[in-house]
Amino acid sequence: MWNVTEADVDAIAMGAGILGTGGGGNPYLGGLRMKQVLRQGHNVQIIQLEELADDAAVCEVGWMGAPTVGVEKLPNGLESQHVIAALEAYIGKTIDAIGCAEVGGSNSMAPLEAGAVTGKPVIDGDAMGRAFPEMQMSTLFINGVDCSPSAMVDEKGNCIVFGTMITAHAFEKFARDLCVQMGCTSLIAGPAMSGAEVKAHSVPRTLTLARDIGNAVLNARARKSPFVDAVLKVTGGKEIFAGKLIDVQRRTVAGFARGSMLVEGLGDFRGEFMHIAFQNENLVAWKGDRDTRDEVVASVPDLICMMESDTGEPITTEQLRYGLRVNILAIPCTDKFRTEPALKVVGPAAFGYPEVVFQPLPKTPGQGIE
Amino acid sequence: MWNVTEADVDAIAMGAGILGTGGGGNPYLGGLRMKQVLRQGHNVQIIQLEELADDAAVCEVGWMGAPTVGVEKLPNGLESQHVIAALEAYIGKTIDAIGCAEVGGSNSMAPLEAGAVTGKPVIDGDAMGRAFPEMQMSTLFINGVDCSPSAMVDEKGNCIVFGTMITAHAFEKFARDLCVQMGCTSLIAGPAMSGAEVKAHSVPRTLTLARDIGNAVLNARARKSPFVDAVLKVTGGKEIFAGKLIDVQRRTVAGFARGSMLVEGLGDFRGEFMHIAFQNENLVAWKGDRDTRDEVVASVPDLICMMESDTGEPITTEQLRYGLRVNILAIPCTDKFRTEPALKVVGPAAFGYPEVVFQPLPKTPGQGIE
Repeated sequence: MWNVTEADVDAIAMGAGILGTGGGGNPYLGGLRMKQVLRQGHNVQIIQLEELADDAAVCEVGWMGAPTVGVEKLPNGLESQHVIAALEAYIGKTIDAIGCAEVGGSNSMAPLEAGAVTGKPVIDGDAMGRAFPEMQMSTLFINGVDCSPSAMVDEKGNCIVFGTMITAHAFEKFARDLCVQMGCTSLIAGPAMSGAEVKAHSVPRTLTLARDIGNAVLNARARKSPFVDAVLKVTGGKEIFAGKLIDVQRRTVAGFARGSMLVEGLGDFRGEFMHIAFQNENLVAWKGDRDTRDEVVASVPDLICMMESDTGEPITTEQLRYGLRVNILAIPCTDKFRTEPALKVVGPAAFGYPEVVFQPLPKTPGQGIE
Repeated sequence: MWNVTEADVDAIAMGAGILGTGGGGNPYLGGLRMKQVLRQGHNVQIIQLEELADDAAVCEVGWMGAPTVGVEKLPNGLESQHVIAALEAYIGKTIDAIGCAEVGGSNSMAPLEAGAVTGKPVIDGDAMGRAFPEMQMSTLFINGVDCSPSAMVDEKGNCIVFGTMITAHAFEKFARDLCVQMGCTSLIAGPAMSGAEVKAHSVPRTLTLARDIGNAVLNARARKSPFVDAVLKVTGGKEIFAGKLIDVQRRTVAGFARGSMLVEGLGDFRGEFMHIAFQNENLVAWKGDRDTRDEVVASVPDLICMMESDTGEPITTEQLRYGLRVNILAIPCTDKFRTEPALKVVGPAAFGYPEVVFQPLPKTPGQGIE
């Protein structure tokens, strides 16, 4: 159990930005909001999965939407209370603890802010160990946890409860559509789950991991030592490319930022090119020529993370622009996503790349995402 | 107070079809379902507004969607229980009585079926005194009744609760979008209202009126006397045209059946033409030439009703086809729609006809829609 400090917020925002693999919303804005909440005298306690009672009432809290919109349309600050109260009204009981849907990006901050303003503890773990663009891509839902009831609000005060959803895919479809109608950003609380369900299927200790990754980068930056090495040490990942962004194709479609980028190698990678396709998050990285994608180097569900070469700042896909210098890291995902049923939901084919075969990155036990 | 019989179902289906002004869903299918429910031993009590306690918990029950889809995609029969239970779970109390959102078309049957299967009484009145294509077009919402909380289900088992909607327009927008995602038909229960609100703003006795209109047609048919005269006597309306459909333009857009038709005069109207524009319901009727719309004869919110000339059957816009012989009646709408604030929501301009000035049909006190 630990209490979140302002320094933790900076570290988690940094680490969650990296684990966001380009998506999950901008952790900078979420971090600013969280620090403001702490300065208002709120406090939030992080508890371990083991500390959760089996019959506790738990819900995740997280943002849905297009990151390109999320950086411009700000919340009103009351969304957390509103959405949790609506869910509690529907289930007729009080939520005991708040879970994290995806540790990546601003969705690491959403449960912290919700926990702080409602006085509820937040669970150290999440349902992705990264960020993913669609809700069914969750270790909980893949393992049969019901995605309803859930609640969703916008910054204007509209609130919707998903009482019964027959599949996680239906939930994603309905919620995504409403999210677009709500102006492409909405806050979701849900599903209402038991402590037992959360303990059985979450990726454990990912808030701590995000904090450790963030601290590794911040400490390396302070010591002017290489931040890439520091991140690789904590995550068990590997550097797959470094270079300069020379092309970005991006469009906002049905609430998503979709596109691809081309990176020209620098340093050890001079003369090489890397193509990366994304849908909010980075999906597949190919080495190849300027015009050809020759070899898959990493793919979902493993993490493809980009950091700005000067500062170590994580780069989200809405920030991509010509000329950015980047280091690209691949980090092994949770074992819970490496099963055959999970790969049907989060593997390359689920994102429209049936020709890409997922080659799991080697993993060191006790290191990185569990 | 009266109990609905199978004969009442036939009469209400007929009368509600006429009051549906072309929309509101096919009353034939709703009537078949209602008779099946009665044969299963269910019973439904119709109560007057005056019998309702001010603090009673009331909700309307009605279908949303495109009639063109509603005639093909059948309900599973459990929607009423599901949607009312979801609303009750959210508000944390039991619904005491069921209201009718629109007496037109199948939405006259929806509350009867819901009342029968849940054992709750149904109020003799509605919020339109006709059918209208969008939810904000309600005497309740126009007079400031909150459109939330409401619940909505599909035939697959999905259920959504609209906890807080900041405007009736937002409710319409979110619900319409979800309805399209649900496959263009959904059942709504809501809003949860007090008896006092319902009593203050409903159009009274419209279920009885629908039954009386239906009986007038059925009795005229049995006696082989003119059904048009019988309907005019009960409704205080007038016959504005009779002829043969010679052109129909129709498309399903964003969950609506939109289009226009051209009728060539027969009998007293030989040599004349009538153009009618519709959006689920008939909106504006013009007399004119084959190619020109010269003079507005009737328009929303007054009712433009079409009946098949041989049988007196009401014709819904999804049934329109070349060669149909029709009588076209105009019926004065409720006074509650003839105020300036109401006309902003239900007048011709609200449907995209700003050039049409609403000319209220003359009304006989004590006759027709109150």
